[in-house]
Amino acid sequence: MKRISIYDSTLRDGAQAQGISYSVEDKVKIVERLDALGVRYIEAGNPGSNPKDLEFFERVRGMKLKNAKLIAFGATRKIGIKAEDDGNVRSILAASTSAVAIFGKSWDYQVTEILRTKLDENLRMIGDTIRHLKQQGKEVVYDAEHFFDGFKANPDYALATLKAAADAGADSLCLCDTNGGTFPNDIFAITQKVVEQFRTPIGIHCHNDCEMAVANSVMAVQAGATQVQGTINGIGERCGNANLIAIIPDLQLKLGFECIPPQNMAGLTTLARAVSEIANMPLNEKAAYVGADAFAHKGGMHVDAVVKNPVSYEHIDPELVGNSRRTLMSEVAGRSTLLARIRAVDPAIGKDSPETRKIIDRLKSLEHEGYHFEAAEQSFELVVRKMLGKYTPFFELIEFKVMVNEPSADSMNSSAMIKIRVGSEVEITAAEGDGPVNALDKAVRKALERFYPAIAEIRLTDYKVRVLDSKEASAAKVRVLIESTDQRENWTTIGVSTDIIDASWQALVDSIEYKLVKDQEKRPTPQPPPRGRG
Amino acid sequence: MKRISIYDSTLRDGAQAQGISYSVEDKVKIVERLDALGVRYIEAGNPGSNPKDLEFFERVRGMKLKNAKLIAFGATRKIGIKAEDDGNVRSILAASTSAVAIFGKSWDYQVTEILRTKLDENLRMIGDTIRHLKQQGKEVVYDAEHFFDGFKANPDYALATLKAAADAGADSLCLCDTNGGTFPNDIFAITQKVVEQFRTPIGIHCHNDCEMAVANSVMAVQAGATQVQGTINGIGERCGNANLIAIIPDLQLKLGFECIPPQNMAGLTTLARAVSEIANMPLNEKAAYVGADAFAHKGGMHVDAVVKNPVSYEHIDPELVGNSRRTLMSEVAGRSTLLARIRAVDPAIGKDSPETRKIIDRLKSLEHEGYHFEAAEQSFELVVRKMLGKYTPFFELIEFKVMVNEPSADSMNSSAMIKIRVGSEVEITAAEGDGPVNALDKAVRKALERFYPAIAEIRLTDYKVRVLDSKEASAAKVRVLIESTDQRENWTTIGVSTDIIDASWQALVDSIEYKLVKDQEKRPTPQPPPRGRG
Repeated sequence: MKRISIYDSTLRDGAQAQGISYSVEDKVKIVERLDALGVRYIEAGNPGSNPKDLEFFERVRGMKLKNAKLIAFGATRKIGIKAEDDGNVRSILAASTSAVAIFGKSWDYQVTEILRTKLDENLRMIGDTIRHLKQQGKEVVYDAEHFFDGFKANPDYALATLKAAADAGADSLCLCDTNGGTFPNDIFAITQKVVEQFRTPIGIHCHNDCEMAVANSVMAVQAGATQVQGTINGIGERCGNANLIAIIPDLQLKLGFECIPPQNMAGLTTLARAVSEIANMPLNEKAAYVGADAFAHKGGMHVDAVVKNPVSYEHIDPELVGNSRRTLMSEVAGRSTLLARIRAVDPAIGKDSPETRKIIDRLKSLEHEGYHFEAAEQSFELVVRKMLGKYTPFFELIEFKVMVNEPSADSMNSSAMIKIRVGSEVEITAAEGDGPVNALDKAVRKALERFYPAIAEIRLTDYKVRVLDSKEASAAKVRVLIESTDQRENWTTIGVSTDIIDASWQALVDSIEYKLVKDQEKRPTPQPPPRGRG
Repeated sequence: MKRISIYDSTLRDGAQAQGISYSVEDKVKIVERLDALGVRYIEAGNPGSNPKDLEFFERVRGMKLKNAKLIAFGATRKIGIKAEDDGNVRSILAASTSAVAIFGKSWDYQVTEILRTKLDENLRMIGDTIRHLKQQGKEVVYDAEHFFDGFKANPDYALATLKAAADAGADSLCLCDTNGGTFPNDIFAITQKVVEQFRTPIGIHCHNDCEMAVANSVMAVQAGATQVQGTINGIGERCGNANLIAIIPDLQLKLGFECIPPQNMAGLTTLARAVSEIANMPLNEKAAYVGADAFAHKGGMHVDAVVKNPVSYEHIDPELVGNSRRTLMSEVAGRSTLLARIRAVDPAIGKDSPETRKIIDRLKSLEHEGYHFEAAEQSFELVVRKMLGKYTPFFELIEFKVMVNEPSADSMNSSAMIKIRVGSEVEITAAEGDGPVNALDKAVRKALERFYPAIAEIRLTDYKVRVLDSKEASAAKVRVLIESTDQRENWTTIGVSTDIIDASWQALVDSIEYKLVKDQEKRPTPQPPPRGRG
């Protein structure tokens, strides 16, 4: 089986997309996910043009990656100076990655009109930069910007730029369709010519401006390219980059290339969703392979045929990529996953138990309301416990009131009053916070801590808000996800409401209750709440 | 110039998409738009399977179309009965369109395992149905379902089904990649073989399950197909149908085919947006050709090069399809982008004016705090106006208080009290809402409307929340983006704060002020606020 190197640029070219603004933490999380999936290269930043990227490379220097190599990206040296004196080249080296990527011009017009230098000097810029980086012991990927436009305008010069890179020792030559305007038949023919002329491995880097980036990438591989550059979910400038989430299964499941370790293919849907959450770019539910609609059947005739035999209206088995068929979700694909979750709560429940049917129905109705349990497994566990009677409420909310004042005397512009009942005792208390959710969070913990001292161990580590049906503007539904930790375990809980305070409240309560449930299970005889105080 | 028949199925195959539910009015509006664009065929419904579609065909019987023919769609006759006695065939005729489309099976497996009939009977079903429709004077399009899968499994039988249709008088034969699993090279090779064997015009109908539907459609045309079926924006079941909004310019602007009258090409962006509004399926802003991001540039180097010459990073001139170039503000944006924005406020400002430097410094410091002006150009305009002294405040906030109560008597769990000053007058008022932001939004408009009646024209159309540095959990910074419209213009404003109420407040105020500023500029003598009320 022929191997294809998957080269991810979600963190570099993807960062050019409108609306993308990764924190260093976001980037670390994406690197971890990509490495676990098994991509070969992670192009993680452009340290010469963005100082924040240098901070990131320092941060990840000690990270142990199983599959991937990190890549620092940048331009060839500037006109008329030595590569070793070029600030950008120095920044690339300062990132201390074992592999680097360098882009240069292949289109004669770009050299003379945009760079405004001579064609020979451009060849030297490419060669000098790569030679210098090779002398520093780096693996070097050469990105030939505008290669296809350049080849169409002046094939000899375009090939000469590749030769300059190859002669200088580049480890691979990547052909870029920078403007995204090239068609599949041209991509195939031009890539094939390059592959015939060079022994250096050839890569492909496409953009989606004609809605052809995935097809173009696949055609290039069929013409002999062995490295594919792209981004998760096609995140990228303008119409986006080539979408690796479609290219990987296209190549691996349908053409027999190996892009990632086969056992990781079923993680593709989860990865696509995770990156979309981290980047806060909603996943297109019609996305090939991983979208919620990708294997959803609506037409009655299609549904009937799919029941008779899935091959009727499905090009692959959705489980291969970790997705599931929508109309039959409860019958087939989702069921085994769900059953495992349900059995974790009550091992006596079977596939055909009436409880299973009830839980699936409840899950469907909650997902219809906007809950998304894939990202909040612990909230789902609480739903299952409640339905199976494996749950005793820890407290009851009597009321809360949250107030926000503008202007405020200090940064604590919000206050929350809360009244709860635990057993026969009532506790009322209040707290101030920086914003209403912060005040409410502090108040509820304060109210509960004397009954459940373990609550003091909970720390909220992440808080995310996603507006659903955002066209309804300020009365739209919001989904809140809260990540918590007690230093031993991390958990994620969810709330959905038209009101952000209410959604946050649901997620906060789930976070607290999950902690108490899990502690209770470790200590089968729970301590009764202390009495007589307060 | 070779003509390509564009065959739109937004109303028929598009109606299979998750979330689509057209009213008869919606369908009429879409027909008018498609006809104005100049498509050749509009497949508008399946009267045999959907009684609402029959109502629609009755409704449009008198419509005068300039360019398009309406098509009623349905299956071949059932097994073992005469075409003239088949209920579905009768429904197609009842639609009274001059052209009809009939689909039949081409894959031997589908005939024997799904239809459960003999291969010969399937050929007769195709032939009989088409002959009957031709006898009724109809133009007949034959859709060969699963053609590519069928051809791969049994090419002789797949071709025999086409021959049955052609011999019965079909006016065109459309090859369908029903499951969307076929690759561009196979589409090309198989279409080419069919084109060589038949004199009847050949069509192509693709689905996007491998994210290749556009490329596949284009490859089929390059192989000799002359009819292209698809939908506007790719609306369709699962991953969608082939997207005509990309295919039309791909073929017409880049390969020289004529799909629509050339003078209509500049209407493509408007059409895509209109259909997306009517269908209530938000347009993907990264859509090829027509998305708001399709010609948006963010990286400073790209922006500078695009200013020097657009061909550097644009595959076509955006005006050809009625779209426009956007340069995005951000830390990576070049100075030229900013200068254009600043000059829109004050044309006297130059590249080296001290104001330009000050504005850039301010922009950098705001972006560092988490503002993101590439998505909120109107908030940035207000920043520039304030710095250039081109701004007089419309009102002053004295205070607001927002209260959230749980439990609440009804869905209005939040209330907001607000006190503002306009000139020498003070207004205090309050409003209830579904959530605190909704309550505050209503209260501030209520307070201001008597001074500025134009505020009543503002409608908030989108509300987005992004948590920054989400590791700080419930005290994390949030960024709020609000989109507003007054039916003449849309604008986006931003707020950033650790408190979601405060961030929303900033964005709300900017939205109102932007509206008032732009109205003021159109009427240079603003009306003084009415006095003596309240």
